[in-house]
Amino acid sequence: MSTLTRLKHAVFGKPIATKHAHTERLPKRVALPVFASDALSSVAYATEEIMLTMAKFGGIALVAVTVDFALAISMLIFLVAISYSQTIHAYPQGGGSYTVSKENLGTFWGELAGASLLIDYVLTVAVSVSAGVLAIVSLAPSTQPYIVPMGIAAVVVIATANLRGARESGALFSVPTYVFIGLVGAMIVAGMMLPGTPMPPEIAEAKPPSNPALFVLLILKAFSSGCTALTGIEAISNGTQAFREPVSKNASTVLFVMAGILSALFLGISHLASKFHTLPMEIGESGFKTVTAQIAAATYGEGPMFWAIQVFTAAILLLAANTAYADFPRLASLIARDGYLPRQLASVGDRLVYQNGIIALTIIAILLIVGFQGDTHKLIPLYAIGVFLSFTLSQAGMVRYAITHRTGRFGMVVSAIGAVVTGVVLCVVAYSKWGDGAYIVPFALVGVMLMFTGIKRHYTYLAKALSVGPEDRPLALDTTALLLIPRMHRGVLQAIAYAQSQTKDVRALHVSLDRASTDHLKQEWAKFGADMPLVILESPYRSLMDPLIEYIDEALAEKPEMMITVIVPQAVPKRWWQGLLHSNAAVALKLALAGRKNVVVTNVRYFLT
Amino acid sequence: MSTLTRLKHAVFGKPIATKHAHTERLPKRVALPVFASDALSSVAYATEEIMLTMAKFGGIALVAVTVDFALAISMLIFLVAISYSQTIHAYPQGGGSYTVSKENLGTFWGELAGASLLIDYVLTVAVSVSAGVLAIVSLAPSTQPYIVPMGIAAVVVIATANLRGARESGALFSVPTYVFIGLVGAMIVAGMMLPGTPMPPEIAEAKPPSNPALFVLLILKAFSSGCTALTGIEAISNGTQAFREPVSKNASTVLFVMAGILSALFLGISHLASKFHTLPMEIGESGFKTVTAQIAAATYGEGPMFWAIQVFTAAILLLAANTAYADFPRLASLIARDGYLPRQLASVGDRLVYQNGIIALTIIAILLIVGFQGDTHKLIPLYAIGVFLSFTLSQAGMVRYAITHRTGRFGMVVSAIGAVVTGVVLCVVAYSKWGDGAYIVPFALVGVMLMFTGIKRHYTYLAKALSVGPEDRPLALDTTALLLIPRMHRGVLQAIAYAQSQTKDVRALHVSLDRASTDHLKQEWAKFGADMPLVILESPYRSLMDPLIEYIDEALAEKPEMMITVIVPQAVPKRWWQGLLHSNAAVALKLALAGRKNVVVTNVRYFLT
Repeated sequence: MSTLTRLKHAVFGKPIATKHAHTERLPKRVALPVFASDALSSVAYATEEIMLTMAKFGGIALVAVTVDFALAISMLIFLVAISYSQTIHAYPQGGGSYTVSKENLGTFWGELAGASLLIDYVLTVAVSVSAGVLAIVSLAPSTQPYIVPMGIAAVVVIATANLRGARESGALFSVPTYVFIGLVGAMIVAGMMLPGTPMPPEIAEAKPPSNPALFVLLILKAFSSGCTALTGIEAISNGTQAFREPVSKNASTVLFVMAGILSALFLGISHLASKFHTLPMEIGESGFKTVTAQIAAATYGEGPMFWAIQVFTAAILLLAANTAYADFPRLASLIARDGYLPRQLASVGDRLVYQNGIIALTIIAILLIVGFQGDTHKLIPLYAIGVFLSFTLSQAGMVRYAITHRTGRFGMVVSAIGAVVTGVVLCVVAYSKWGDGAYIVPFALVGVMLMFTGIKRHYTYLAKALSVGPEDRPLALDTTALLLIPRMHRGVLQAIAYAQSQTKDVRALHVSLDRASTDHLKQEWAKFGADMPLVILESPYRSLMDPLIEYIDEALAEKPEMMITVIVPQAVPKRWWQGLLHSNAAVALKLALAGRKNVVVTNVRYFLT
Repeated sequence: MSTLTRLKHAVFGKPIATKHAHTERLPKRVALPVFASDALSSVAYATEEIMLTMAKFGGIALVAVTVDFALAISMLIFLVAISYSQTIHAYPQGGGSYTVSKENLGTFWGELAGASLLIDYVLTVAVSVSAGVLAIVSLAPSTQPYIVPMGIAAVVVIATANLRGARESGALFSVPTYVFIGLVGAMIVAGMMLPGTPMPPEIAEAKPPSNPALFVLLILKAFSSGCTALTGIEAISNGTQAFREPVSKNASTVLFVMAGILSALFLGISHLASKFHTLPMEIGESGFKTVTAQIAAATYGEGPMFWAIQVFTAAILLLAANTAYADFPRLASLIARDGYLPRQLASVGDRLVYQNGIIALTIIAILLIVGFQGDTHKLIPLYAIGVFLSFTLSQAGMVRYAITHRTGRFGMVVSAIGAVVTGVVLCVVAYSKWGDGAYIVPFALVGVMLMFTGIKRHYTYLAKALSVGPEDRPLALDTTALLLIPRMHRGVLQAIAYAQSQTKDVRALHVSLDRASTDHLKQEWAKFGADMPLVILESPYRSLMDPLIEYIDEALAEKPEMMITVIVPQAVPKRWWQGLLHSNAAVALKLALAGRKNVVVTNVRYFLT
């Protein structure tokens, strides 16, 4: 086993045999943390996003009503949950938006859902990791300059864990998720029992915009910002097959429990934010704290409870990123199997994970974190569009499913309401967040879909061009071999033997760069050449390549169907740097002949010992 | 002809046939500018270096005696010229330091001279180009922020011209060199006729250091700084063969004419610098001007004559860099032929130039310009050590030559004086400039010599390991071929035909990654496989490579002397990016099998049309 292989096994773990692949069936109490961490983690930033919108667009007076927005969004959460429970019953084997849209609405809508989900997963990693880093930064504001490196480090750690194959998911998720729920729940109760802080003058004296159009826009923007709380809610419908029997019933129960916890935590945090008059801070402000951190500090002071809440907030956010690390590669492999993404994404690596998908996700997420400097406020406006687009497509697909499968009027109506509401929210989000960076998403969607189409076209063409008809047979080939001789040495002797073992029709070729050594070679050849004809090519311009290529082209022109094997002897030194002292004709020849059909360049290596 | 070849010809010129190689024999009036530009160009910065040392080390009061240093250095110039005229007579075929030291003092000293010259040539390019850029910056101080990019651009232009083959050297050099001599000569005469400017108070009131040790060090430093004027004086002795008959006499005459012009210009500029009380400026100062530019401005005002002097100063400096572009690759090829540098440096390209040497010089010079930010003051302290080391070795070699060839006592004494004086100057320069960066040079010398030794050792070993004895013959080889089959397609049919044309002993290998497609392949193979046995390899860890490598290793272990050809069919798409959608097994296999003797990996390409 090579050192490199050993190192790979140490970092990423030893290979796992295919026969050990299995789908764990989870009890409900384990399934909840596994599937809910993504959705629940959004309470760490959703309230802050609503307040930030108000503070930024002149509606600071409205921060007192943050909880009303949270209430509206909670209703939306339940509506979406009801819709997805339909999907769970229709697709107990797991019905992601991609599958539901593709099967019920057709390829185009399937691709669109797939593209929006891929973008969504990438953003989940970037947003969750950035928010997790900000939770830690709230503990130690002096770490602010290191937000981006900390984010990158977190992504790399998560990616490594996933390349090892994060099969131990139940144990991994349960503790942080339940502790997070417990801590935040306790904080809400404790905070509610405290007296509120008096309204600071900048809020008390602020007036909402008097222009009614601006006022409506502000309301829409604040609502859109809060909709980020819905991200991750679809997770259960994707992974239904992980539940125990009766699958649909169990999954549905967990879905509604999750929706309940999510709403409760979101409402509670939003209520305390209004009560303590916390205001979102900018990265770079001294003593930076997220809104959640401010609430925790106001409730408990900056003691152990404050620390515990921040640490477990960071933990659940990193678990949310980890969820995307399970979803993105799996979805990418589904799409790749359909021929819309490179085949390399479809294959499972030696640890039973889609390693290429994990690597791709890591690269894109790191680029996003660097590009947006780990600022959640800049990333989140991009986030909700993809999420609501996939909600809408999924629900629309379910309407169609209900019609074609005649599953009854009730399901169809629920799905239709879901589709319309999420569609309207999609429009609201896109309209109100357009200027904050949301415009990037449609371009990204079109880009991804064009890529899908291009890749599909190539694979379709490839299958056709390479397909073997029933009459096809391997045809006898006319072949010849050319053996390149720079000068006589032991490697050349070996190459002569190799060439003669391959074919009888072999000529030796020497490009003459200086007369004296050519004459010397001719003498040696008489001794060692083993009856092989030696052709001397003159090189008026001292090029090694040009006369060779000319000779090969002439030979090909004479017999266009013939295959020519060019055999290049190569001495391989013991150390790699010594290779720099040899001129590597084989590589240069390969490049020069890359465009020529019917030419095979083979280098026969002679190892120096 | 490919687009790339066309582009290469447009930029670097069409190939030149070997038969057109010739050594131009130059008349004296053409030889002077060709060989003198390097030496003469140093008057552009040598005076400034002396003054800078004084200004920097508390001896500003001494700027009035700059001309005395110039006088001492002029005497040194003539001494070195007399010494080199000995070399010219002894080596009419051209006696560079490398040749003279190697032949007379032995390999070690030859290598040392070679290393110091290579370093010297690299510094010539960096210093001359930087000084040329500063001459232009003196015209337009607003270009100061672009010193480094301008320097890089100049190096690239000179390199391109040299890759084309700068055969037209006579015409190229004559005009700028003679115009430069004329312009600077006229400026000196005009300046001498002007009244001097009154001594500014900062010079009048300054006191030289009262500590005698510091005073002596200051004198030594100033002298060392001025010694940069001697760079390039050895050029004629290197290129004697370019002179017409009688070679030695003509070369010697030109050498002394050059020494005379160099001394005159250097003395004149140093005199005017004292007279006009110019002071060197730092890069970054507003209205930056070199000392030469300040003198020109004081003499003529900033009118057309000032401009002409600056432009031709820049021109002769770029020609000096160009000289190093002729010398470095030629010397590198000599050293490479002796086996101390990579062979690739020894071969002449299709334009009859040592293209690899030109490229190497360009890369190192650009790194230096970037590293030292194009600041001549920082580069020059490194410069003189290599120059005087090669002077000393060359003169010492001539002493030995005079002894062994019994050429008479006079020549020996002259060379001995030359060797001792340049040796002393070498010590002075090394001692007094050590802290200014000169300490880098010994490390570089040791590094280059270690590289020489390592390379020589490898080539010696290589020649021995590869040498063919009189009894050696190509031995009959036992070979077998393995054809890799991922699935059945047209490319595979072609590969089957190819494999069968090469050898009878060929087996098809399929790594089974999933059972269904393996079963499908077995059926297809019965139809298309042309009686070739198909071996199915199980892959419990889903790796394509590992089972293959295991299989090959087993086969090799069974018959250690057998050569195995692994044939990999590859479909080649029309566009390069489409290649990203194919998994390229041949490349991965080559890497994986790189360390295995007796394995040849061949990929048979099937072109999609």
